[in-house]
Amino acid sequence: MAAAQVKPERQQNGGSSSLLSVFLFDCRLGKSSCEEKTLHVRRGYKEFHADICKAFGIKPSEVFVVSTTNREELTETNFNGIIKDGITLYILKTIDQSLPSSTQERINFLPHYDTLVKSGMYEYYASEGQNPLPFALAELIDNSLSATARNSGIRNIQIRLLFDESLGKPAVAVIDNGKGMSSIQLKNWAIYRLSKFRRGYEAYSDDVGYVRPPPVARSLNSDISYFGVGGKQAVFFIGHSTRIITKTSGSQDVHEFLLSKEDFEKKEKNRESIYDGYIRNRKPADFSHVSEDDKNLRNLIMEEKDKENFTAVIVTGVQAEHIQFLKNFRHLWVTQLAHIYHYYVHGPKGHILGKPRTTPFSCIDIEVYIYEKAKAPKILNLREIKDDMQTLYINSAADSFEFKALVEREGVVEGIIRYHPFLYDKETYPDDPYFSSKDKDDIDDIDDDCFIVEKEARGKRPIFECFWNGRLIPYTTIHEFDWCTIPKKRGLLPTECYNRISGVLFTNDKFEVSTNKLTFLDLGLKLQDKNTIFTRVMNCQDQRVKIDREFALWLKECHEKYDKQIKFFGFKGVITRHDV
Amino acid sequence: MAAAQVKPERQQNGGSSSLLSVFLFDCRLGKSSCEEKTLHVRRGYKEFHADICKAFGIKPSEVFVVSTTNREELTETNFNGIIKDGITLYILKTIDQSLPSSTQERINFLPHYDTLVKSGMYEYYASEGQNPLPFALAELIDNSLSATARNSGIRNIQIRLLFDESLGKPAVAVIDNGKGMSSIQLKNWAIYRLSKFRRGYEAYSDDVGYVRPPPVARSLNSDISYFGVGGKQAVFFIGHSTRIITKTSGSQDVHEFLLSKEDFEKKEKNRESIYDGYIRNRKPADFSHVSEDDKNLRNLIMEEKDKENFTAVIVTGVQAEHIQFLKNFRHLWVTQLAHIYHYYVHGPKGHILGKPRTTPFSCIDIEVYIYEKAKAPKILNLREIKDDMQTLYINSAADSFEFKALVEREGVVEGIIRYHPFLYDKETYPDDPYFSSKDKDDIDDIDDDCFIVEKEARGKRPIFECFWNGRLIPYTTIHEFDWCTIPKKRGLLPTECYNRISGVLFTNDKFEVSTNKLTFLDLGLKLQDKNTIFTRVMNCQDQRVKIDREFALWLKECHEKYDKQIKFFGFKGVITRHDV
Ligand SMILES: Nc1ncnc2c1ncn2[C@@H]1O[C@H](COP(=O)(O)OP(=O)(O)OP(=O)(O)O)[C@@H](O)[C@H]1O
Ligand SMILES: Nc1ncnc2c1ncn2[C@@H]1O[C@H](COP(=O)(O)OP(=O)(O)OP(=O)(O)O)[C@@H](O)[C@H]1O
Ligand SMILES: [Mg+2]
Ligand SMILES: [Mg+2]
Repeated sequence: MAAAQVKPERQQNGGSSSLLSVFLFDCRLGKSSCEEKTLHVRRGYKEFHADICKAFGIKPSEVFVVSTTNREELTETNFNGIIKDGITLYILKTIDQSLPSSTQERINFLPHYDTLVKSGMYEYYASEGQNPLPFALAELIDNSLSATARNSGIRNIQIRLLFDESLGKPAVAVIDNGKGMSSIQLKNWAIYRLSKFRRGYEAYSDDVGYVRPPPVARSLNSDISYFGVGGKQAVFFIGHSTRIITKTSGSQDVHEFLLSKEDFEKKEKNRESIYDGYIRNRKPADFSHVSEDDKNLRNLIMEEKDKENFTAVIVTGVQAEHIQFLKNFRHLWVTQLAHIYHYYVHGPKGHILGKPRTTPFSCIDIEVYIYEKAKAPKILNLREIKDDMQTLYINSAADSFEFKALVEREGVVEGIIRYHPFLYDKETYPDDPYFSSKDKDDIDDIDDDCFIVEKEARGKRPIFECFWNGRLIPYTTIHEFDWCTIPKKRGLLPTECYNRISGVLFTNDKFEVSTNKLTFLDLGLKLQDKNTIFTRVMNCQDQRVKIDREFALWLKECHEKYDKQIKFFGFKGVITRHDV
Repeated sequence: MAAAQVKPERQQNGGSSSLLSVFLFDCRLGKSSCEEKTLHVRRGYKEFHADICKAFGIKPSEVFVVSTTNREELTETNFNGIIKDGITLYILKTIDQSLPSSTQERINFLPHYDTLVKSGMYEYYASEGQNPLPFALAELIDNSLSATARNSGIRNIQIRLLFDESLGKPAVAVIDNGKGMSSIQLKNWAIYRLSKFRRGYEAYSDDVGYVRPPPVARSLNSDISYFGVGGKQAVFFIGHSTRIITKTSGSQDVHEFLLSKEDFEKKEKNRESIYDGYIRNRKPADFSHVSEDDKNLRNLIMEEKDKENFTAVIVTGVQAEHIQFLKNFRHLWVTQLAHIYHYYVHGPKGHILGKPRTTPFSCIDIEVYIYEKAKAPKILNLREIKDDMQTLYINSAADSFEFKALVEREGVVEGIIRYHPFLYDKETYPDDPYFSSKDKDDIDDIDDDCFIVEKEARGKRPIFECFWNGRLIPYTTIHEFDWCTIPKKRGLLPTECYNRISGVLFTNDKFEVSTNKLTFLDLGLKLQDKNTIFTRVMNCQDQRVKIDREFALWLKECHEKYDKQIKFFGFKGVITRHDV
């Protein structure tokens, strides 16, 4: 490769030009304003001094000092240490005189590379004892959902945990059969905070401008990008090096980009431009640049043969504790992902156990592959998970109540409330492993003298889980609304019925979420707004009715129809029936 | 000012050099690898074509195409649109041939300026109905606390709300009498993610390297910087333009820097380097660059006369809803700030009403000034607030129990539990306006048939509020520890006593918080760790005793000593005594 140097972004200490430019302000007293001139530094202090005298017409007899803007006097000794390309200097009568007029000092404030490298480190936090790693993985799944949104056939998203050390260093890969990226789009992937809304501008232009997708049920629009940071935050939360390999349909070339902490550190050390890099363009399945030891990567690249379009995000330098968690708590995090993407995987009606899949949504396959040494690979499809919270809620519900909330101008929230009846001798309300069960214990334990049946079913849990563009926002819950809470005055039916409801809210993109997609910014506040209108939805039709009355009637009906309270008393001992 | 052009960071479309460089890979089939050469573009397509033939020794008879890496063929028509400085091009036999070997395409992925401009927009979210604006203000107060840490006299931090429109556009200013910044430090302020730990490196070096302060009681170390993003996030959450004015002690000059959304937009439009800018260096009190209309700013600059060192952060373009909130909910947010900085303002023992201030901490003044048209300015000192939650807890407590938790290597958590007794006819446990009171209502309302006195005092609130380096992290609470929760088996004393305790945890910087400083990353998980050791602290001495037993005994003592349950029954009517 011919040695060719791209003009670098100006770094404070960077620059490889032979002649340095410095900016000089003549601030000697007596002038009304400081004249500015640019000088090139030819050699040492002496020549520089002479050049200054010449440029500003200073007589040899005149006494003056040259100083930095921090009033450090330039001398023969410190000259080489101080002079840098683009530095601003003063010509002063005395080092501590005040400035006759203001001066403009040129600065460069390029974001530090930690902007990328540490972008995820302090974003994904634990709440209620949840390890946030699945939420970082979710960012990559979000991107794959967007990328596969217009697939004509099956949408396939694979999370591959390459933990067989005999095949190379551990890696976490997310691979989809989505539309892929051109090299411009791949470059744009790496631009921090370049959101889809900014792509129109020519410097970035990589596609037609952003078009907001039309409204769909449960806002399952696959449009889960917003900030231009998710992928970067996720990969640097998981590990410290990421390779993205991608190909668009019809393209001859695969594009590959490596972004790593190590590489940034090297560039800083060598005073190279921090945000310059290379994309490798190559034939599909050409792994000649990959070392023989890295069998995992070679295998992945070999798979390119059979793919028309795809994107693979391969994270290495994975933190040891993440590997442990992914290995040892597989069921936990896979179930959590099944929860987050429940409605993408199962469609707007969710996971109805025992019912064959028919909806168009059945074509999103999100699969987890785990490879470990001397073990058969483990494959899980999120669709097969049966104990994620939404599956539990849906399948223990006897009836449901649908509604809609209209907020401000275009904010639409679809809602469902489900009734989990009391059957025979117990509540059917599902347990949430993440909802601090201590709170429920509290109640169980203090009931020696007072049986609080009212609190048992839901306990202290909020009613509503909240989905944004169809995807769970895990740390925001909505406790209740005025119209579905236990009424102040004793009403039509036992208060415990109010604790037998669970709910889901589906918002569209008019509601904002935080950059880590863990919380809504102000969903709760907006729903409380007095202008928010709630309507009941029956058979897909909005009903102009009083929601509170409707809800109370529905709840009453649920209670009368589904709650079956049978109490056995007077226990007389166990009888074994021999006649059956 | 002489027109002088600093070499810009390379922008995708930027660059003002007359001769463009492009990188050409000869990818014609038959070669085993693609040779690369750099060419300068002299004039139009024809000359370029000729130059290519010459450079690569291509015979005039040979048919070839030149294309972009996205395989768009270069033609006379699109030449000017495609050719940009630093672009990579291919020489191909046919436009859709595959590459004989991989090519390296140069890219630049400079973070978008939204990195700064939108840094705070999706960070400060609402929780429990709290407007997050005070938490953004807190970032600026954090910075001022750090800056004033080594003041010898009074540490003064003023939040000035300049809302008198006759004096200029509305502004929010935070002004401190701290150490100020040199122009290098001011430049570093603007560098996104440049944390204090990176300052050692020469490009940034602006001070001695970071020195971790020695341990102090309650970790009140004033060292509340961590990520290099807080100030930027805060100012762009509050408004869209920020002026920082600062001076260090002994310096002749004031340094002033303006960072604004508008400015970024202008630079993008003019294809200028996004992260290049100017610092204005000038005499103190020189406001000649400020328009006459902007009386607010002129007045602030005039104040510089009397100050040896200071920093003023002045945010304009303040969002209308923020102004409304700041005006209309003054008591709310001032109290919230008093809560966040309770221990900085009152010292490690907190706000003991009626006791004169004596501790060394009494010298931090955090003041709020509100200026509105035709109103007298309103001044509030956070120290005077009497109804922030910590003041309420401290002053309604009858006794306290101190402990320490040692986590992993260097993690230290100091803890206090306070007992709020039942007095005569009611609980003295203070109400929290932010803790969704609906939950408490629930309980009050269902008590027709069952009086649950156990739940009344604290309700469902978690026991512990958590402070990091002495400053409240508002959205992380710790519910309880095993040893201070209601025991499974009925114990020594009534369960309601366990609901009469409030608590505070003070962590040092070995615990991590999220970049928005709203939550701890994993404090809860770490405290639950089985290796975490709890010890009781009495008279500043760690006691090697069983914490659970100690706590139970203390609680029992509190109950016996302080709870005074007097019930009046048999009401006979009101009697007016005429003899007193
Ligand atoms: N799997 C993928 N397939 C195709 N394009 C992708 C893929 N992943 C990312 N991209 C592209 O890279 C861009 C950047 O992704 P990133 O997740 O960092 O930000 P974002 O999705 O735009 O916004 P957010 O911060 O909300 O995630 C995306 O907008 C998309 O254009
Ligand atoms: N009021 C001030 N006085 C002096 N220096 C300040 C002041 N405010 C900010 N600085 C300097 O600017 C730097 C950047 O501030 P900023 O709040 O953006 O990040 P940080 O405080 O370093 O980290 P964090 O993200 O935790 O807030 C600080 O580290 C400090 O050196
Ligand atoms: Mg994304
Ligand atoms: Mg800060």
